[in-house]
Amino acid sequence: MFELLKTDPHTKARLGKLTTAHGVVDTPVFMPVGTQASVKALDPRELREMGTQIILGNTYHLNIRPGLDIIRAAGGLHRFMNWDAPILTDSGGFQVFSLAKIRKIKPHGVEFRSHLDGSLLFLGPKEAMEIQRVLGSDIAMVFDECPAHDAPAKEQRLAVERTIRWARECREQPRADGQKVFGIVQGGSSAALREECAKALVAMDFDSYAIGGVSVGEPEPEMLKAIELTEPFLPAHKARYAMGLGTPAQMIELIARGVDMFDCVLPTRIARTGTAVTRRGAFGLKGSAYKADFNPIEEGCGCFACRHFTRAYLRHLLNVNEILGLRMVSVHNSYLYLKVMADARAHLAVGTFADFYREFIMNYKPSQKILAARKMETER
Amino acid sequence: MFELLKTDPHTKARLGKLTTAHGVVDTPVFMPVGTQASVKALDPRELREMGTQIILGNTYHLNIRPGLDIIRAAGGLHRFMNWDAPILTDSGGFQVFSLAKIRKIKPHGVEFRSHLDGSLLFLGPKEAMEIQRVLGSDIAMVFDECPAHDAPAKEQRLAVERTIRWARECREQPRADGQKVFGIVQGGSSAALREECAKALVAMDFDSYAIGGVSVGEPEPEMLKAIELTEPFLPAHKARYAMGLGTPAQMIELIARGVDMFDCVLPTRIARTGTAVTRRGAFGLKGSAYKADFNPIEEGCGCFACRHFTRAYLRHLLNVNEILGLRMVSVHNSYLYLKVMADARAHLAVGTFADFYREFIMNYKPSQKILAARKMETER
Repeated sequence: MFELLKTDPHTKARLGKLTTAHGVVDTPVFMPVGTQASVKALDPRELREMGTQIILGNTYHLNIRPGLDIIRAAGGLHRFMNWDAPILTDSGGFQVFSLAKIRKIKPHGVEFRSHLDGSLLFLGPKEAMEIQRVLGSDIAMVFDECPAHDAPAKEQRLAVERTIRWARECREQPRADGQKVFGIVQGGSSAALREECAKALVAMDFDSYAIGGVSVGEPEPEMLKAIELTEPFLPAHKARYAMGLGTPAQMIELIARGVDMFDCVLPTRIARTGTAVTRRGAFGLKGSAYKADFNPIEEGCGCFACRHFTRAYLRHLLNVNEILGLRMVSVHNSYLYLKVMADARAHLAVGTFADFYREFIMNYKPSQKILAARKMETER
Repeated sequence: MFELLKTDPHTKARLGKLTTAHGVVDTPVFMPVGTQASVKALDPRELREMGTQIILGNTYHLNIRPGLDIIRAAGGLHRFMNWDAPILTDSGGFQVFSLAKIRKIKPHGVEFRSHLDGSLLFLGPKEAMEIQRVLGSDIAMVFDECPAHDAPAKEQRLAVERTIRWARECREQPRADGQKVFGIVQGGSSAALREECAKALVAMDFDSYAIGGVSVGEPEPEMLKAIELTEPFLPAHKARYAMGLGTPAQMIELIARGVDMFDCVLPTRIARTGTAVTRRGAFGLKGSAYKADFNPIEEGCGCFACRHFTRAYLRHLLNVNEILGLRMVSVHNSYLYLKVMADARAHLAVGTFADFYREFIMNYKPSQKILAARKMETER
């Protein structure tokens, strides 16, 4: 399903093409997150206009609400939400371990109480794959165990063992027509565990591979290390997906380390509190510095928000809690994420990625606020 | 500024044309309400697509936030919010009397404390017109006193006296280029006061006239009566605007009574709690009856929401608090209001308004919920 078109001579960055049942996706790609069958505050037309190729949905959340019966009756997730381009669904593993009150980890999955109403539910490889089959996503993820970044070594080892065993069970489940399945490498920051997990999954020959256990509150160097420890064991002719990442600068760093796919709730989440992301970093639009600033959020930006509205107007909307404010910052932030990927692809195509990479990192000033927001990944 | 094109032979309904500095408005017209320089949850493109000809802004709210300096620096309200079609601004009279903690009514206006931060402010005819001049609206409203519908007779009389005196002061203030000014008739449900107020204002020769003191919590028959008591004293060659009204059926009733212009927060306000308006009445989309209903909100509706999404999907979005849900119901409800006006105009043009009127009222089942929502006009 993945075609490697070109590899950058100076970094590990790759230009590729992912073929799915609902169309082709050019990589590196950013996937806007539509946890509950909606990319927060955006409509499908806005998503298409900003160049969205593929979005995410979530097994755990969609299984609780609206529930599988309704999505089945609608004819699958694409039709339910009226999105006819590719969809990747997360398996719910991350949510079971981060959101639910876990009752018991069993051999074939996890018994837990819903974070919503406390009802007793069970999710394991079989259930997660069955749900994703009904959702009809183009790419399904295996059901994995994702421990906290500071979990003790023993827990990390157990998680890797379960992740491998559950991946094998996922591999054997029936799929929707044309549905692809990605394995997820766990192992925290342990070189041995990352290698072991990657090798075991690669032996199962998944359609592509994700690197999990990142974006779970770890410091950035540890995140980069986890990626670097895993990447050498992933086959070049399959796509690599870094789950839940990151800032624009982090995505560029990871592209340079051989990653092809990204998803992150950051652009829409921080938009709702009035933080705009630009090529130079993020800033809080609500500040009084912008009250009479009649420039767009980012000079030269082609997004709907920057083409139509000023910082002063958006600041006003945010300060008086008008929905259009958070909508337009969501548009800008998501557009920026997608445009940075499009720029990376263009530079990879013409062989200038290394320059782009250096310049991007030089210009981007990481914001502590943004990094902190990443630590509360309740929305993912 | 108003051209009366046609009068219905069976009712008092009128087809007309209002010429403003930012374009022509066909009447009868519904004006979406953009209190704080944004029609709640909608963007200007959506507004244009649904056939919006003119929107409202509000002197009281805009003067507090973002403040006049910022709108002046932006070059006026049209440029501040990027809306280049006509804008009508309410004078703030309604808000001073309904939202603010009034400190003292003085000869030339009202000293009051901001509902927001308690700061001491003053608004009178001079201030309201000055603010509207800076906002640069196409139509400015005079600063009036709008008492509660159950205010004692003496208070209603005092309000009419002040409204007349203040209207005269408003008349003398400088205006923005091409800005028109409407008088507002008060008088509650008193025939004598309505007549007195209307005659006094008509003698001042305003560009057109509004009927105020409606949509202030009064029962529907009293509202209709207030309109019927006022209309005969308004000149045929000027537009008549019923402030803050109403449900679709009420607007049709009022068109039949000779009213040309309407504004109401209902379509967007009830949308945010999940209530959709149709030609048959309103219904709560969150109900479990719609969980697997894959029809649009209203069969045959041409709005963006009905062309793209099902009731089941919108219900899900509303129930999980996804912004797209309230956005799309806001789109549908506002579209319906505008389309009902377009239909009324079409029927007036070909002489079939009376049939349309009868059929519309027969099909529309008023909902108590919707009428109750009108009573809390804090947003207006």
